Amino acid sequence: MRVRIAISQINQIVGNYEENYKKIITSIEEAHNNKSDIIIFPELTLNGYPPEDLILKTQYLKKSKLYINKIIEYSKNKNILIAFGAVDWDVETYNSAFIVYNGQLISKYKKMFLPNYSVFDEKRYFIAGNTPTMIEFNDIKIGITICEDIWVPNGPALALAQNGANIILNLSASPFFKGKQSSKLEMLKTRASELSCWIAYCNLIGGQDEVVFDGGSAILNPYGEIMQQAPLFEETILYYDVDPYETTRANLREGKRKHYNNSVYNNIKIKSINHEVCKKEKLDQKNENLPDIYTQMYMAIKCGIKDYVKKNGFSKVVLGLSGGMDSAIVASIAVDALGKDNVFGIMMPSQYSSEGSIDDSKALAENLGIKTTIVPIKDIFDSFMEKLNKDFEGTEFNTTEENIQARIRGVINMAFSNKFGYMVLATGNKSESAVGYSTLYGDMAGGFSPIKDLYKTEVYKVAEKYNELHKSEIIPKNIFTKAPSAELRPDQKDQDSLPDYDTLDAILFRYIDREMSFDEIVEDNYDKNLVKFVIRLVDLNEYKRRQAAPGIKLTERSFGKDRRMPITNGYKVWKEGV
Amino acid sequence: MRVRIAISQINQIVGNYEENYKKIITSIEEAHNNKSDIIIFPELTLNGYPPEDLILKTQYLKKSKLYINKIIEYSKNKNILIAFGAVDWDVETYNSAFIVYNGQLISKYKKMFLPNYSVFDEKRYFIAGNTPTMIEFNDIKIGITICEDIWVPNGPALALAQNGANIILNLSASPFFKGKQSSKLEMLKTRASELSCWIAYCNLIGGQDEVVFDGGSAILNPYGEIMQQAPLFEETILYYDVDPYETTRANLREGKRKHYNNSVYNNIKIKSINHEVCKKEKLDQKNENLPDIYTQMYMAIKCGIKDYVKKNGFSKVVLGLSGGMDSAIVASIAVDALGKDNVFGIMMPSQYSSEGSIDDSKALAENLGIKTTIVPIKDIFDSFMEKLNKDFEGTEFNTTEENIQARIRGVINMAFSNKFGYMVLATGNKSESAVGYSTLYGDMAGGFSPIKDLYKTEVYKVAEKYNELHKSEIIPKNIFTKAPSAELRPDQKDQDSLPDYDTLDAILFRYIDREMSFDEIVEDNYDKNLVKFVIRLVDLNEYKRRQAAPGIKLTERSFGKDRRMPITNGYKVWKEGV
Repeated sequence: MRVRIAISQINQIVGNYEENYKKIITSIEEAHNNKSDIIIFPELTLNGYPPEDLILKTQYLKKSKLYINKIIEYSKNKNILIAFGAVDWDVETYNSAFIVYNGQLISKYKKMFLPNYSVFDEKRYFIAGNTPTMIEFNDIKIGITICEDIWVPNGPALALAQNGANIILNLSASPFFKGKQSSKLEMLKTRASELSCWIAYCNLIGGQDEVVFDGGSAILNPYGEIMQQAPLFEETILYYDVDPYETTRANLREGKRKHYNNSVYNNIKIKSINHEVCKKEKLDQKNENLPDIYTQMYMAIKCGIKDYVKKNGFSKVVLGLSGGMDSAIVASIAVDALGKDNVFGIMMPSQYSSEGSIDDSKALAENLGIKTTIVPIKDIFDSFMEKLNKDFEGTEFNTTEENIQARIRGVINMAFSNKFGYMVLATGNKSESAVGYSTLYGDMAGGFSPIKDLYKTEVYKVAEKYNELHKSEIIPKNIFTKAPSAELRPDQKDQDSLPDYDTLDAILFRYIDREMSFDEIVEDNYDKNLVKFVIRLVDLNEYKRRQAAPGIKLTERSFGKDRRMPITNGYKVWKEGV
Repeated sequence: MRVRIAISQINQIVGNYEENYKKIITSIEEAHNNKSDIIIFPELTLNGYPPEDLILKTQYLKKSKLYINKIIEYSKNKNILIAFGAVDWDVETYNSAFIVYNGQLISKYKKMFLPNYSVFDEKRYFIAGNTPTMIEFNDIKIGITICEDIWVPNGPALALAQNGANIILNLSASPFFKGKQSSKLEMLKTRASELSCWIAYCNLIGGQDEVVFDGGSAILNPYGEIMQQAPLFEETILYYDVDPYETTRANLREGKRKHYNNSVYNNIKIKSINHEVCKKEKLDQKNENLPDIYTQMYMAIKCGIKDYVKKNGFSKVVLGLSGGMDSAIVASIAVDALGKDNVFGIMMPSQYSSEGSIDDSKALAENLGIKTTIVPIKDIFDSFMEKLNKDFEGTEFNTTEENIQARIRGVINMAFSNKFGYMVLATGNKSESAVGYSTLYGDMAGGFSPIKDLYKTEVYKVAEKYNELHKSEIIPKNIFTKAPSAELRPDQKDQDSLPDYDTLDAILFRYIDREMSFDEIVEDNYDKNLVKFVIRLVDLNEYKRRQAAPGIKLTERSFGKDRRMPITNGYKVWKEGV
C-alpha cells in the first residue's frame, strides 16, 4: 500500500483569515482531486506567520476558532486527512497543528519547542505543548511536529519514531537566510535517517515585513534521501506516494526500534474510517536542484519586494537612481518583482554629481524600460543654505551640508510617494547601514529597504548574477567598474573614509553575523586600529538603524528584530580596547 | 536585635561595567559607614537593565564575571551582607542575584519567573532558575527574589515564607508607567501581609532607551505596612532597622506557618561569621507620599530626557517651536532636565502660520530663558515646488505639499543637530502617533521623542501640572486655550480631520492600552463609524511608527517594543465590521 501525500506550500497573509482560508480549501480541493490521502500545510497556515501582537487581541483569537471550524466543516466527505496550523486558544494560546478528517477534528498537537531567539518571539505568545502526538490512519502511524520540533535531536520526532511512527509530518514557517536552505536539508536528511522514518516537510513561502519564507518543501525517505522537493519561492503542491512500510524495512536494516512504547503518548486511532486507498501510480519525481546562493538571494529579494508592496496595498514603487550599484540592483529586481510599468526612477543630481552618474542611470532605466524624471537639487540646497546662512556663519562645509543634500532627495522621493501613491524603496546596503554611512531621513527614507541585509560585496555578486540570469547586461558594465561614491562633496569616494569593502565586510561579518569579539577579530589578522574603527562605527550608529525602513532578512543576523541592541550603550570595547 | 537594611536605588548605564561597579562600591562604602548589616541593589545592578543582545556577546559575559569578582574582592573585611544583581553565565545565562559577604560568594539565586511580555524579552536571554534560595545570617532567615518573582502569588516568595523567612529581599528593574507605582505598592503590601514577612524592595532608577525606572524602593513590615519609602527618580540609599522577629509575632497573630519545611530549598547558613550587630537607634522614618499621577509623568519625562541625552554623550538639544502645546511641554521639561542653556528652539513659520504662533513661542522661550532662532520655510518650499512643478502638473494641493513643509522643518532641525552637535527632540504625542497625524521624516524626525506615549489630553494635564509645580505661568495661557493646528494649509485645525481629542483619546485608550475589540468599544457607547475610522487609522499607520524615534514608555502599552504589530496586516476589522 502506498499513501499519497500532498504538501501545499502556500503564500499566506498575516491576519487575513478569509483569503488564507480560501487558499487552504483550494489546495484541499486540488489535492483531493489528485487522489491524495493526506495534505499538509505550513505552520500557522490560517494565521500567516508571524501574527505578532495580533495574538493579544481576543477578537482575533475568536476569529481563528471560527475559521478552524470552517475548515473542519469543509472537510466533510472529502476522505482526505488534513493537517494545518493555526493559533489555538483556550485559557492560554498555543501554536498548534489541527488534524482534520471527514468533518471531524481528529487531533490537535501543540508545538513543543518554541523559538525565542533571532527574529522569533514565540514565548511571548504561546505556551509550549508537552505531548508528542501520533495518529493511526489505516494502520499507518503518522507523527505530527511543528517547525523547531524537528530541529531538536531529542525532541518529539525521536519520541514519535520510538513509538513506531511511519511518517513524521512537519509544518514549518522557516524564514530564508543565506545558506539556510542547504543546512536545513542536511538536518532533514540526518533526522530521517537517524529515525528511519519518512519525513514530509512543508514550509511557508512569501514575504512578511522583515522576513521571507522560501518554501523548498520536501519528502525524505527513511534512509535520509530527498525523494521530492518543491521549488523555492513558488506556490505549489508537491505530491509523493509513500510506502509507509519502508520504515519497517529501514529499521530492520539498521537493527533499531524493536520495542515500541505506545502507552505514553497521545495516540489517536482512526482505523475504522472507510478510506479509499490511492492508486499505485507513482507521480513524477521532480527533485529539484537548489539554485546557487546568489540566485537564492535574488529570489528572496524579489519575493520580499513583491509581497511587501502588494500585501500592503501598493502596486508601484519609486526610487532615487544615483548611478551607483545599490539603486541599480534595487531598481532591477523591483522590475522583476512588479513589472517595468510599476517602477519609477528619479535622478536627483547635485552640484557634485558626475556626468557619468546621470548617463549610467539613464542607460539602466532604458535597459529596464522604466520611466524616470530628473529633479536637480542644487537650487533647493541653495535655498536651504541661504536661510541657514546667519546661524551657520563661520562654520565649515561638513557632513551637515552633505546630509542636507541627501535629505532633499528624501523629501523629493516622499513627495512622489505622497502625490502618486508610490511606495519609496530605500536602497541602502548592510555595509553602510552597519557603519552609518547613510543619511537618516535622506537616502534611508522609504517604505521598504530591500537590500539592507546585503553587504556591499554581495550587492555586486547579486548584480552579476542578475545579468547572468537575464543573459544580458541590463545593469551597465560601468556601474560595476566605477568606484562607489555618495557624490555629496567634490570628488568624494566611499573609500576616502572607509576601508576597502572586502576588508570592511569581512570585519562586519565577524562582528555582526558571527558575534565575534574584538580580540577574536584581531586574531583573524585584521589590524587592531581598523577593527576598533569599524566596530565603533557599528555601535555608534544603532540610533540610525532603529529608525530605518524594514527590509528583508538575507543573512543569519540582520538588523531589525533579529538584533536587539540598546542605543544607550556603555559597552564600548573600542574605547577600552578589551 | 535589629538588622539595619540599606536599599540602594541607583541609576546604572547599560553596558558600562566600570561606572556601574564604581556606583556599587560607593554605595557599599556609604552603607557600611552607616553601620548597615545588609545592602541590597536593583536587578542586574552590574549590567544595567535591559542589556538586550549584549548578552549574546561572549566577551561581554566574561566581563560580567570579572566585575562580579571585583565586588567580591571589595567586600573583604567589610562585615556587610551584599545582594546585587548580574548576568550569570556558565553554559547558559541566568538573571541572578549574588550574595556576597566578607570576600566570599555566599550564594547565588537564579531568577525563576522571567517576564517575556510587554517590553520584556527575558526568555530570549535567560534560563529560568528553579531553586528558591534562602540564607541564614545570624539566625535570621533572608530569602532572595528578583523582580517578577514577587509579583507571582505562588512563586518563590511563598516557598521562602513557608520555610520561615524573616525578610524577603527583592531586586527589581521595574519600569514606570502611569498608575504602576500605586498598584506595585498594593501588591507589595498584599504580599508582605499574606506571607507575614518583611519585604525589602529595591528598584532601579533612570532612563534606558524606551523605558524609565522610577525607584520608589520600600521596606514593608510583616503586616503589610510601608515603613519606609524612597523618593521617585532619585538616587538614594534608604535605611531601615528591621526587627526580624516581628515575623514570628505576625505569624502567631495570624496563626500561620507553624510547620516549616527547611529541607527542600537551597538554604545557606553563615552563622559562624562574627557580625557586629547594629546599634539600636532607629533611623528617621521618611515614608514619602507618592506624588500625584501627572507629577509622576512629568518626573518620568524629565528623567527620560536627561538620561537619554546624557547617557548618549550629548548635552544640548534642539527642537522646533510651533506655538502649540506639544513643543511647549517638551521644551519646558527639557529645560528642567538639561538646563536652559542646553535647549535651543527653532521657529519655522510657513506661509500658513499665524502671527500668534510666533508670539506664543517667543513668550514661552522668554519664560524658559532659552535661545531661539527663526528660519522661515516659505522660500525653501517654493524652491521645492518649482522643481516638482513639471511632474506635479495638474495635481491639487494636498497632503503632499503639507508633508513637504513638515519635512523642510525636519531637515532644518537635523541641520542644527549635525552642525552643532545638538540632539533633536521630536514633539509628537501618542494621539497623533496612533492615527498617523504626523509626517514621517518631518515632525517625526529626531533622536528622541519624549512625549510619544502621552495622549493629547494628557499633554494638557501635564502642562497644567508643570505650571503648578513651577508656581508660574511658564507655558503661556494662550497655548492652553487655542485650538490645536499643524498650520500646514490655510486655517487648518486638528479637529477638521479628527474627532475632538477627548473622544479620540478615549477610543484610542480602549483600542491600544486596553486591547479592546471593535465590538467592545462600540458597546462602550462610541459611534460605530467613528470607531471604525479611528482604528483604521491606527492600523494603517503602523509603518510610520516603525520608523519613529524612541521615546519614553508612560502608559501600560506604549508604541515600540511594547506593541509588536505587523505592518503587513490583513486583519482589518474596520473593513469587515466584525
